[in-house]
Amino acid sequence: MKLTPIVENILSHYASENPGVRAKLAQILMQGKKLGGTGKLLILPVDQGFEHGPARSFAQNADAYDPLYHYKLAIEADLSAYAAPLGMLEAGAEKFAGCIPTILKMNSSLSIAPSSDEPNQAITASIKDALRLGCAAVGFTIYPGSGSGYDMIEEVSELAREAKAHGLAVVVWSYPRGAGVSKNGETSLDIIAYAAHIAALIGANIIKVKPPGQHIEQKAAADVYDKYCINISTLADRISHIMQAAFSGKRIVIFSGGAGKSDADLLHEIRAIRDGGGNGSIIGRNTFQRSYNDAIKMLETIINEYINENILR
Amino acid sequence: MKLTPIVENILSHYASENPGVRAKLAQILMQGKKLGGTGKLLILPVDQGFEHGPARSFAQNADAYDPLYHYKLAIEADLSAYAAPLGMLEAGAEKFAGCIPTILKMNSSLSIAPSSDEPNQAITASIKDALRLGCAAVGFTIYPGSGSGYDMIEEVSELAREAKAHGLAVVVWSYPRGAGVSKNGETSLDIIAYAAHIAALIGANIIKVKPPGQHIEQKAAADVYDKYCINISTLADRISHIMQAAFSGKRIVIFSGGAGKSDADLLHEIRAIRDGGGNGSIIGRNTFQRSYNDAIKMLETIINEYINENILR
Amino acid sequence: MKLTPIVENILSHYASENPGVRAKLAQILMQGKKLGGTGKLLILPVDQGFEHGPARSFAQNADAYDPLYHYKLAIEADLSAYAAPLGMLEAGAEKFAGCIPTILKMNSSLSIAPSSDEPNQAITASIKDALRLGCAAVGFTIYPGSGSGYDMIEEVSELAREAKAHGLAVVVWSYPRGAGVSKNGETSLDIIAYAAHIAALIGANIIKVKPPGQHIEQKAAADVYDKYCINISTLADRISHIMQAAFSGKRIVIFSGGAGKSDADLLHEIRAIRDGGGNGSIIGRNTFQRSYNDAIKMLETIINEYINENILR
Amino acid sequence: MKLTPIVENILSHYASENPGVRAKLAQILMQGKKLGGTGKLLILPVDQGFEHGPARSFAQNADAYDPLYHYKLAIEADLSAYAAPLGMLEAGAEKFAGCIPTILKMNSSLSIAPSSDEPNQAITASIKDALRLGCAAVGFTIYPGSGSGYDMIEEVSELAREAKAHGLAVVVWSYPRGAGVSKNGETSLDIIAYAAHIAALIGANIIKVKPPGQHIEQKAAADVYDKYCINISTLADRISHIMQAAFSGKRIVIFSGGAGKSDADLLHEIRAIRDGGGNGSIIGRNTFQRSYNDAIKMLETIINEYINENILR
Amino acid sequence: MKLTPIVENILSHYASENPGVRAKLAQILMQGKKLGGTGKLLILPVDQGFEHGPARSFAQNADAYDPLYHYKLAIEADLSAYAAPLGMLEAGAEKFAGCIPTILKMNSSLSIAPSSDEPNQAITASIKDALRLGCAAVGFTIYPGSGSGYDMIEEVSELAREAKAHGLAVVVWSYPRGAGVSKNGETSLDIIAYAAHIAALIGANIIKVKPPGQHIEQKAAADVYDKYCINISTLADRISHIMQAAFSGKRIVIFSGGAGKSDADLLHEIRAIRDGGGNGSIIGRNTFQRSYNDAIKMLETIINEYINENILR
Repeated sequence: MKLTPIVENILSHYASENPGVRAKLAQILMQGKKLGGTGKLLILPVDQGFEHGPARSFAQNADAYDPLYHYKLAIEADLSAYAAPLGMLEAGAEKFAGCIPTILKMNSSLSIAPSSDEPNQAITASIKDALRLGCAAVGFTIYPGSGSGYDMIEEVSELAREAKAHGLAVVVWSYPRGAGVSKNGETSLDIIAYAAHIAALIGANIIKVKPPGQHIEQKAAADVYDKYCINISTLADRISHIMQAAFSGKRIVIFSGGAGKSDADLLHEIRAIRDGGGNGSIIGRNTFQRSYNDAIKMLETIINEYINENILR
Repeated sequence: MKLTPIVENILSHYASENPGVRAKLAQILMQGKKLGGTGKLLILPVDQGFEHGPARSFAQNADAYDPLYHYKLAIEADLSAYAAPLGMLEAGAEKFAGCIPTILKMNSSLSIAPSSDEPNQAITASIKDALRLGCAAVGFTIYPGSGSGYDMIEEVSELAREAKAHGLAVVVWSYPRGAGVSKNGETSLDIIAYAAHIAALIGANIIKVKPPGQHIEQKAAADVYDKYCINISTLADRISHIMQAAFSGKRIVIFSGGAGKSDADLLHEIRAIRDGGGNGSIIGRNTFQRSYNDAIKMLETIINEYINENILR
Repeated sequence: MKLTPIVENILSHYASENPGVRAKLAQILMQGKKLGGTGKLLILPVDQGFEHGPARSFAQNADAYDPLYHYKLAIEADLSAYAAPLGMLEAGAEKFAGCIPTILKMNSSLSIAPSSDEPNQAITASIKDALRLGCAAVGFTIYPGSGSGYDMIEEVSELAREAKAHGLAVVVWSYPRGAGVSKNGETSLDIIAYAAHIAALIGANIIKVKPPGQHIEQKAAADVYDKYCINISTLADRISHIMQAAFSGKRIVIFSGGAGKSDADLLHEIRAIRDGGGNGSIIGRNTFQRSYNDAIKMLETIINEYINENILR
Repeated sequence: MKLTPIVENILSHYASENPGVRAKLAQILMQGKKLGGTGKLLILPVDQGFEHGPARSFAQNADAYDPLYHYKLAIEADLSAYAAPLGMLEAGAEKFAGCIPTILKMNSSLSIAPSSDEPNQAITASIKDALRLGCAAVGFTIYPGSGSGYDMIEEVSELAREAKAHGLAVVVWSYPRGAGVSKNGETSLDIIAYAAHIAALIGANIIKVKPPGQHIEQKAAADVYDKYCINISTLADRISHIMQAAFSGKRIVIFSGGAGKSDADLLHEIRAIRDGGGNGSIIGRNTFQRSYNDAIKMLETIINEYINENILR
Repeated sequence: MKLTPIVENILSHYASENPGVRAKLAQILMQGKKLGGTGKLLILPVDQGFEHGPARSFAQNADAYDPLYHYKLAIEADLSAYAAPLGMLEAGAEKFAGCIPTILKMNSSLSIAPSSDEPNQAITASIKDALRLGCAAVGFTIYPGSGSGYDMIEEVSELAREAKAHGLAVVVWSYPRGAGVSKNGETSLDIIAYAAHIAALIGANIIKVKPPGQHIEQKAAADVYDKYCINISTLADRISHIMQAAFSGKRIVIFSGGAGKSDADLLHEIRAIRDGGGNGSIIGRNTFQRSYNDAIKMLETIINEYINENILR
């Protein structure tokens, strides 16, 4: 398989990684008849059962209780990768080996954990699990701003190092949260930019953040945005700022879809991500809480939006 | 020994596990003249001495103070497996080697531990102990909802990984408890479904939960059950929902018997588990707090109930 | 050396242990011209300097400041074993190598530690120390009922596993203490039975508890003792109940002597231990706080009492 | 490359280090056409994005969002070394391999961490990362005076030991902070001297502290400075005292530049460091928050000031 | 080199240690033209810069800022050994290799650590450091009575074990401190005796305590001293009691000098240590806070006092 110039350019930003890691990034970037080679990614994550429980996640579309359902959906929709916790991957890894790159989501939280201003997650899998299940990458959530933030960062740094040494790519879900960040601040522009920067600094190959709002959390940051007249009025502008924060666009950044929303809202977001230079989306509930056919149709629409802008950057 | 189609089908859901783990699951599923090959399990657990002390567990039937008693009972009743803490297995492993699959229960709690909203258990054995004692599986309790919940999940994940790598099957007792769950919620339908799902997500091969009540703990879950008109009126319906939460029935789920109850109540529960598609029961106090002969008779009745429904699923 | 039938019978309860561990148990059980082979044990422990300081332990008999004193005393009195912390054994291990089985007491507490309802002990030695010093066994204290109880149990479980893997026997001092147990409850019958059972469950080869009083700590236990009319009126009855809690007498249980007491009281206790089927005593302060000659005489009297009941059990 | 007498003399103070560590120190000390061999160091550190977020660090000079920018700047300015966290080095290590000695900054703090009087940092890289990225040294921050101070010192001691064993030099940012030090005390003379001494005692090869003020924090120290009439009136005097505290000048000490300041203030500080016998500066924000050309010019001026005093010491 | 009978006798108390450890003890005991072979030790410790900062330690005699100064002083004064933290030894180990036995002080505290009733120290070096620097022994402080006491004892026990396994002798600074001991109690007779006993129990080869006062801290201890009429009126009597607590004089015990004091007071203390059978002194501030010549003279006087009593014990 010959890499496209776009993918070659992206990989050039990861020149310090070993060939194993770069091959895994290439595998994800080249996956999909339409998406492959465009530098755009669309990933299906199914870890909501961990955080919200099974009924809140799957009752709306009961077929989705079955882990094999998500493999089939991601493959038929021709997505870039499928991300899920250990048990979900164990259920289908053998049957669908080689059909789609998989990302082992290695830590998760529980909505029944006692509430805390030191929110944390539990590590539920290992690098060896990712290797035996044939994964392309491993994924982790960090909560900068939490009293547990340094511990999570240390834990993820260690596992990321082990993953890379074994030729696996590393995806970081960077979600500021906890006593150091206000509720509103979790989606503020400066904090999301900070989140993307932190993930890049600890060595993430692919960074996942939420689409940023217009609010600025830190006073010292607000002064700077103001003083240097940084353009943050449209979502596309803000996505562009996030890419800047991710090493001037030299790190792959994808944006989460959040809770179920209308098709119009979703497409508006996709176009802003595209226009701001983002690398794509990772969309869970908006996918599997629809019927299979609706989901396939919606994912096709999103893919088409993304590849509309398939120009060399 | 040729596996039955039912067992082959169950094992097909564990295709990502190594041959060692699958052989151990087959060993348990094929055990017993009547139960073997039906996909139904009946397991004797004797760990109550750890939690409640010896007299509260065994004084009612003083023969049961002797660890060898339980081996004999489980073997004569032709059960699927016998589960107990380290010392109990050490006492009989040599004498009864090869007679019945054993499950090393690796953590336990104490009723004299200071009360806490971060309930926990102590790890009292190792994977090497399970191997040297010839066990088929290891078992662990987790308390999702406890302030110690993430630590327990991490601990169990690590040990489960080590167990599987050494060809041992993994059983998880998933018991929500602690500051994140109300007392009533511990047996509520949504929380038990959540518990089963968590165990499946962290890679449990066999999941043990309590039979669920009709109560719904989480407001957000109640809305979903209501909105999508999920049938939860009979115990069989609720068991069926638990199986759905366990990867659409692709994980083995067994239900605990709880404190001593009447034969009628017990059989009512067994039939509901059977009719809801559950894989069987794990019954301790209702077994060893009866006389030996009564226990044998009751276990035979339960086995007969389970195999009445021996159809391909 | 040919084992006696009594010792062979005791060893048969440890059939799952490796030959190394069983040989060490045999070494202790066969030690002593009079005690050897009777199934009765008398052990000298000298760890009180750790808990109470040197003067409170040894000023009454200043010769006892010298670690060699205790070796000599235990050897001349022809006891089953000598138990002490690292430094005490290091002081005499070379000189008295091969003269008497030694037990390395691996953890200890300090009376100057700040008071806490999470009482704990410090690990002060390792399995390798026990091996290089030629010990027959290692010993540990656990405090079930303490907020540190689970940690202590986990720590001791790990070390016990390592000890057994290296062919050393394991002795557990099981002393309920801390916020989960009342002061009075520490010597109550149900709690001492519980303590013995816990030690057996975590794999102790030899269990050390205090002689139990008549008080019952847990309401739920009191109901059971009452309902099933368990005989607990004499100390011998209660010792017998403790042996039952220790796997129906299939684990070796020895009883501590406590603070200095009169000869009459001590002998009364010895006879009750003997008549209740206990395996013997471990007596520190009542030994070394007397003059050398008095101690030798007292120990001889105790040995004679124990072997009076030398019948096959 | 022949070492200069000045560098040979400095290396003689590190005679106990292995050849690998000494070669790395020589590499940094010999780097730069002008600085090389003078015993003076000028280092560019870019870790402010970690502590303050990307916009507050780079918005003023948006080119600086790109990690490659800093490599280019440090190389063109002919500095002694470039120091940055993992992700920043990973972005350019391959492209600029061999162009300038790099220092992997291994721990960092976050301004969105909840405030605490036990301030800490997260370890975000490993010695293996430094080796695979071809670094000359690793760097760490410690916060003596913090409730986390001992933990940080232990952590850094362990990593420093591992670094040296692998032939890497060790740089310690010693920043007293936390409940044990007043805000004012953080830059007081006695505390900065103490900070430099601590870093030397734990084995740092290069020590980074802030330029000390005139204030004395500890009463007992003030008495001593007074009693022995120690000259602390000028910054050069105080720098000289810091060098004394760093093993009588036998450890390399460099001083940080702090927040953006005027050229005049900066040059005043540089001259004092030079006149007091300090080994140089490590200047971040004052470098990359200027335009590229301004920064090059300023760094050239600083280098010229330092080498003006290029005499044998 | 032939050992003297006195040294042979002392070594006979360490017969369980391996030849490596015993050779290191012999090296220290045979060091010094006058002290060598007498069983008396005089050691220079320089770790006060860690606890009090550099100016409070060295400003009085500014030559002492230089680590090489202390090596020279200890060698010229012909002392038994020189003890210091990692950085101090690294500075001179190469230059003075083979000139004097060195003791690597492996943990230290900071006077700017936040005050706590759980005082602790930071481990700042490793056994491998001691080996690469050619040390004869390693040293540690423990704080029995602190809430961190058990952790410190466990830490030191582990490191002591590793040290001995590598043929290094072990020195323990045993300093009761923290919530379990009153300020006055830190130097009380019973507590110092307890401290010496604890150090002996955890396997220390050489024990360092403070000279004991007349006060008794524990009520239960006071009763015992009273009841058994233990003579504690002179410092020599009390030293003798401490030696008794250290395994009847079978462990080497040395006494610290404390803060600067007059020559008369110091000599009074030395004579009491000698007359009470103590093994010597470890004197820091009273040495290096004098001028070099004064220090040499004072150390010579002390040595002469010690060897005045050079009789076989």
